[in-house]
This record gives sequence, structure tokens and C-alpha cells, in this order.
Amino acid sequence: MAAAPILADLRAALGDAAVITDPDLLRGYRRDEADLCAAGTPLVVVRPRSTEEVVAVVRRAARYGVPVVPQGARTGLAGAANAVDGAVVLAMTAMDRILEIDPVSRIAVVQPGVVNAALAAEVAKQGLRYPPDPGSWESSTIGGNVATNAGGMCCVKYGVTTEYVLGLEVVLASGEVLRTGRRTAKGVAGYDLTRLFVGSEGTLGVITEVTVALRPAPEESLSLVAVFPSTATAGSAVAEIAARGLTPSLLELLDRTHLRAIEAYQPMGLRTDAAALLLAAADTGSRAADDLALIAAACAASGADEVYAATDAVEAAALLQARRLAHPAMERLAAQTYPGGNGGLVIDDVAVPRGALAALLDGVTRIAERCGVPIGVVGHAGDGNMHPNIVVDRADPANLDRGRRAFDEIMELGLSLGGTCTGEHGVGLLKRDWLAREIGPVGVRVHQAIKAALDPTGLLNPGKVL
Amino acid sequence: MAAAPILADLRAALGDAAVITDPDLLRGYRRDEADLCAAGTPLVVVRPRSTEEVVAVVRRAARYGVPVVPQGARTGLAGAANAVDGAVVLAMTAMDRILEIDPVSRIAVVQPGVVNAALAAEVAKQGLRYPPDPGSWESSTIGGNVATNAGGMCCVKYGVTTEYVLGLEVVLASGEVLRTGRRTAKGVAGYDLTRLFVGSEGTLGVITEVTVALRPAPEESLSLVAVFPSTATAGSAVAEIAARGLTPSLLELLDRTHLRAIEAYQPMGLRTDAAALLLAAADTGSRAADDLALIAAACAASGADEVYAATDAVEAAALLQARRLAHPAMERLAAQTYPGGNGGLVIDDVAVPRGALAALLDGVTRIAERCGVPIGVVGHAGDGNMHPNIVVDRADPANLDRGRRAFDEIMELGLSLGGTCTGEHGVGLLKRDWLAREIGPVGVRVHQAIKAALDPTGLLNPGKVL
Repeated sequence: MAAAPILADLRAALGDAAVITDPDLLRGYRRDEADLCAAGTPLVVVRPRSTEEVVAVVRRAARYGVPVVPQGARTGLAGAANAVDGAVVLAMTAMDRILEIDPVSRIAVVQPGVVNAALAAEVAKQGLRYPPDPGSWESSTIGGNVATNAGGMCCVKYGVTTEYVLGLEVVLASGEVLRTGRRTAKGVAGYDLTRLFVGSEGTLGVITEVTVALRPAPEESLSLVAVFPSTATAGSAVAEIAARGLTPSLLELLDRTHLRAIEAYQPMGLRTDAAALLLAAADTGSRAADDLALIAAACAASGADEVYAATDAVEAAALLQARRLAHPAMERLAAQTYPGGNGGLVIDDVAVPRGALAALLDGVTRIAERCGVPIGVVGHAGDGNMHPNIVVDRADPANLDRGRRAFDEIMELGLSLGGTCTGEHGVGLLKRDWLAREIGPVGVRVHQAIKAALDPTGLLNPGKVL
Repeated sequence: MAAAPILADLRAALGDAAVITDPDLLRGYRRDEADLCAAGTPLVVVRPRSTEEVVAVVRRAARYGVPVVPQGARTGLAGAANAVDGAVVLAMTAMDRILEIDPVSRIAVVQPGVVNAALAAEVAKQGLRYPPDPGSWESSTIGGNVATNAGGMCCVKYGVTTEYVLGLEVVLASGEVLRTGRRTAKGVAGYDLTRLFVGSEGTLGVITEVTVALRPAPEESLSLVAVFPSTATAGSAVAEIAARGLTPSLLELLDRTHLRAIEAYQPMGLRTDAAALLLAAADTGSRAADDLALIAAACAASGADEVYAATDAVEAAALLQARRLAHPAMERLAAQTYPGGNGGLVIDDVAVPRGALAALLDGVTRIAERCGVPIGVVGHAGDGNMHPNIVVDRADPANLDRGRRAFDEIMELGLSLGGTCTGEHGVGLLKRDWLAREIGPVGVRVHQAIKAALDPTGLLNPGKVL
């Protein structure tokens, strides 16, 4: 391995077991779950067990001029964790200890490799809750959630990951260890470096510890489904719920394509004749039924064909399960549409102001027709954050081109409606051009200036975001 | 005015009326409400009416190498708005229009000079609420609130200003106009520049427009007071309320010094024999009485002598009014303690993890005794954010020195308890040294690197924060 003296150096620092160079194993670390994104082959994957080991890796990578790509569970959907050729991949999943849970200060301190569901389970034992719940929560890590500022279904009431990050320990490109933020509920000491790192997708530093805010355990939750004759009326219902001052704890939309895909995947008695379905919940305990009745009234006033309240927690859980099956069901639909293993999904992510949701849904329908590709829409309606899922045939370049065109037209539509090119999946490789378009030349220059200030040689996750 | 060709240039760009050089008027723009902070005399005060005029001012200041100090209503308590000699003061209060209120997307777009109370009143007309409520809310501006990431009494349940800032328009030191953030509920397009500017105290750019998130109008609120025989038991009650998973909408503490000062200032029947009083509220409408009963039980279990629930909204408002009188009452106490206009307050601001509140309160008592200065403590107990108010004699250097020593010892104590040197008042000039100590040399270097990246010549608010 004369070509890579860094390897011997890494082995000396971390031990052989933490330094992976077997080509078969390296292949497993090439990419996250994003489609349409390039992925390289790393020179080496290291699995540090401490901040000191992360420092050792970053310093050696800097010395040899080898780029560093941090990875969590690689469940991301924008290619932010994809390897670049010849890089050191920092696989953070071995740093998976919950260091502290403090019910009085309502904080937890965790290593970045802790899985979201594991933290949720541990804090639940103490009557607490860590709200952020990305779709990947059963496998994704807190470090990855923080690096991408992950969203989820609870955001409509409880906000996204960044609202829960109080402080970080970060290894900088210089190898220095920076501590940001605090353990207190409030604090304004200096620039908000914590939130600068949240969502920066590993381009500014490697997160090695996270202090998160916790909340009391949620109260009992009730839910309903409302069935709509058109996506426009479903979108109007979302606006009406907001206009009436209501705050559901969950407000999700499934369009007909998704309803049919889910029902085909696992029959649940969903109304597949509906154009769209809204799934809403209220987690206000003894008031949940009353709150849900107000949401039901807003849906009815907006033209819902039928509103059906779950009568108990079991039924409510079944409704949530239908929503959680959206992704695998659509994968199955894609596979059936284009057999031979060539059918796939291009998962998009766009957010518009709540009042523009109906226009977004209408527009996506027109784009699907114009581009000649099936597009199902699912997502966090209460936040105006939709995931148009484009069904493509990977074996047919013309079809794939049409899928890409639809993808671009959806972004264009979202921006034209005052929205953003990514509500929760991030920029990574997938949306670099769209980011530049959204934030404009001044925004790009400021991004570049901050990147250069913190990582002047471009060591960390090169090519991502910018 | 040959010494200052910039003046003619500013007059040409903004018109004579917006360019103030009368020395009597300039004196009024020298400082905010912070004590112990140096203030210079500006060369000129300009009152821009548009983003274009702010750009014109910043470009001219850059051309002539004259520093720029942005100011809102100058209600700050850390000297962040203090002029430096020869500076251009950008007084933003003439940019005071509410540009948009959208009840469906629950956002408002405002110019920076809009007064917090004016925005609150306007959104209330549409059944909405802008939660951040700093003590200065009747006079301070949204731009100033954003620049300092202002807190307030609602934070214990609703969080601080930064939680409500979705997007900004900022004039950079280069004179370029940067737009950050979005109008959507969620968004992860690029670095969180919005929150980098929030709390940066005018050192990174001049805020010219703010997009804020709104909430539905609050429900009916009920409140109680709990009277404690010691500050330690009051601190324990705060911890117990958190440990029981309760979420008051307000949880404030007044110590005996404050109770006596308020009662002397305006008799309200407060228990001046108490060591401390907790004021708590629940804004959960039909459940408020039940929620308040749980808070009352936690107080009783922690050793409260008496818990007294307000029986109606009028009584609840009177309790809140007592809290709001804390500051003027203490000013009066200081004036009476050291007559001749020499008595004053040094207002401190420290936050600790909630569980350390009792230790902080005990420690402040010991510091007051050791330094031989009266210190009253008031603040946002539910957040662990306390304001020790040190009574000093400005005419007596030895007394003032003892006050400064007490101030430093309180900071030291706060940091030793895992806290921060400023919970909500900011760094400004007052706490630059303490910021450096809190964030350490790596943190300082990162701050400097970001400042240099955005303002390489140090044009904007020089000497503040760093």
C-alpha cells in the first residue's frame, strides 16, 4: 500500500479493526439512499470510537490531503453521505452511547451514532420524549439527523431537529475540537454556531457529541382520516385548519396513487376511489376528541366526502401504519410498473407556504401528465412539505430523462410558489444547482465564505451542498 | 465639514432630513440601557427608510472607512447598540412598516423598526400571536429583538426569538443584499444563515426585513403565586415542576429584595416576609385550572408556605403587573439606597440548567454578603435564567468595584454550574471577556473566522461581541 501511507498511519492510531480497506466492505459505504447521485469508492472506512480518534483521523487526512466524508446510517435521500473516490469515510455508528439523560433540565447528551429510536426508547423510560421523527427513525442516527436537520411527521406541531439541538461537540477541519451551545434552556453567548452546524451535511465539521432538549412524554393521541374528491380540496382543508387556528399534532396527505399502492401492498380498507386522504391527529389527551372534531369540521367545510375518526388507539395506529407503508408500497409499484428490477422511484422533497399547497398539488398533476411519468404525492401537508415520488424505468434513458424533467419542473414550481427546493431531505449532491438558484449569487458567496472560513482546504465532504 | 466628506455624500443620497449631525441630537444616540459600558459619540446618525438607503449608507461608510453601528430602540442591556466615536449610527426605527400578515401560512413580514407590541397588536386582530415578549416589548423593535435574540417571560413554553425567525433580508458589509431563509414552515436549503444573523448583534450585517412565524392566539390563562421560606425551596419547586412533566406558560421568580422593592413602589399586598415567590401560569384554556393545580401541588411538595391561585383574569393580570414592576421598583430602591442620583443597578443575566437553579440562588446570596452589595434576584425561573440586580453607588468607586466583583463572581458561579454568561441580554460590550471564557479559544477563533468572512474590514459594529 505504498500509494497510501495514510493507511498505515490510521492503523497505528486507531488499530487494525477500526480501519477497513477490504474492497467488498468498502462498497457498502459508497452511498446513502438517494437516487440520481454519483458515488465514489472510498480509499478507507474508519470507525472511530471517541472524539480523540476522530481528531486523529481528521488530522491525518489533512496531512495527506485526503478528503473526509462523515457518514451516519446512510439513510439520507440527497447523496450528502455519498463517498468520493479516494476519501476517508468516517463511519460514526460505533460512537453510539447515550451519555446522559437529565429529566429536570430535560436534556440528553449523546454520541452521534445513537439511533433515533434508541434515544426515543430510553427517554420514554423517564417519561420524556425526543420529538424529531424522520421516516428513517428506526435506523437513522442522531448525528445524521443533526447533520441533515431531519424533519418528520411531528414537525407540524413540534418543529424539526434544529429546535432540539442545544449544543454540539464538533471536530473541525483543523483537527481542533469545538464545543458549541449550552445545556441551558436559553442562551445568547455569541453567534449561534450550533445551528450553523445543524443541517450543514458534514461540510463544516464532524459532529462527535450532541446535547438535545427533551419534552415531557406526549399525552394520549386520537386521529382521523378525511377523504377528498380532489387534491385541491385536500389542500384547501389544510389551509382551513390553519386559518381556524387549529394545531394538529400530525397532518399528512396521501394521494390516490399512494392509496392504491398501499392497498395493493397491504390491504387495509383504504378508499382507493378517493383523490386524496388527509390523516390528522391531536395529542391533547382529554381534549383530543374535541380538538379532532374541530379538525373534522374544517375538513368537511372544505369539501371532504367522508371524515372517519379512529375510535381507539389500535385503529389510530393502523392509520399511521398505512402512512408509514407509503414508501415501500411505492417501491413495489415502481417494480411492478417496470419489471426486471428496473423500476425505481425518484423521491422529491419540496415545501411551499401552507396556503400554496393546493396549487402545488395541482401543478404536480399537470407535470406528471406533461412529462408522461406517474407521480404520486405524499407528505407533511400541515407544513406544506410534499414528497412527489416519480416512478421511472432505469433501463430506459428516455423515460429517465422524462423523470428528471419532472423532478426539475417540480422544483421550479415549488420556488415559483414561494417555496424551497428542500423541506427536509437536504441538498447533498442532488440539489446543489437548485440551492444555488434558490439562494442566489449573494447567498452562494456567503455560503462559500463560511465554508472557506471553517474548512479552507475543502477537506470535509467536498462537493456536497455547494 | 471638510473633515467628513462622507456627510455630504450621505445627504446627497438620503436627503438632509434623514442625516442628523446636531450634537445635541447625537448625544441621544450614544448608548442603550446597559450600565458599565463605554459609549462613544457618533459622527452622524442616519435614519434610512428603505433597504436601498441602508445599502447606500453601508457602501459610503465602507468607502470612507467609517464604522457602522445599527440601532433599534436602544433598550438593550449589554451595550451592543452603543456608538463608537466617529461612527455612522444607522437608526432603523423609521423602517417600521408591517408588510404582510398571512393567517394561513402563519407568517408576518415586517421591517426591522416595527415595535414588538405593535406587531403583537396587529396579529392579534387576526387571531394570531407573535410570542416573543422581552421586558422591553412595548418599545423595543423586531429588528433589535432579532439582533439580540431577545427572550422574555413566554420562553419557558414558547421559546425565544430565534424560534420565530423564518427568514431575513440583510445588508452585508459589502453592501450586497442577502436574503436568508424562507416563508415555509420547514426548509433545509443550505446553511442556516438566518440563525447565524439572529443574535449576532449587528456585527455581521444590518437587518432590513424579517419574516416571522406566528402562532394561533393563546387560550385563556390562569395563574398562581407560591410563597417560599427560602430561595432554595423555590428553586427546588422549579425542578419539581419540570420533573413532574409539567409545562407552565410562565414561571417567574421574585426574591425578597424584589418583593419589598415592588411593595414599596406600589403596594399590592405581596408577602414581603417571603424569601421568594414563584409566579406561574397555564394558558391551556379549559384545562388551565387542572394544570395549575398540578403546579400548585409541586410547589407545596417542595415546601411552599402558601399557594394562592388567582381567581380570575383581573387578579392574574395584577400578579403579572407586579412582576413587570420589578425593574422600576429596583431602580427606585437603588435611588433611595444611595441618594443624590448616584444609586443605580447593574443588571446581570445568567442561565443555568434548571436543576442548578437552587444552587445559583444560594450562591448569589453568598456573593452579595461577601462583596457587601445588595443583590436582588428576579427572572425566568422555568428556564433557569436569572437576573441578579446589583445595587451600586456610582459616586463611590470602592462600592462600584465591589459591585463589579459581585457581577464577575455571579458569572463565574453560573459557568461553574454548567450555565452560560448570558441567557437573553447578550454579549455586546458588557460580556466580551466572559464570552471568550465561556466558549474557549477554539470558539473565539471560529467566531473571528466567521466575522472575517462576512465583514473582513471590521466595518459593522466594531468591538461588539468579540
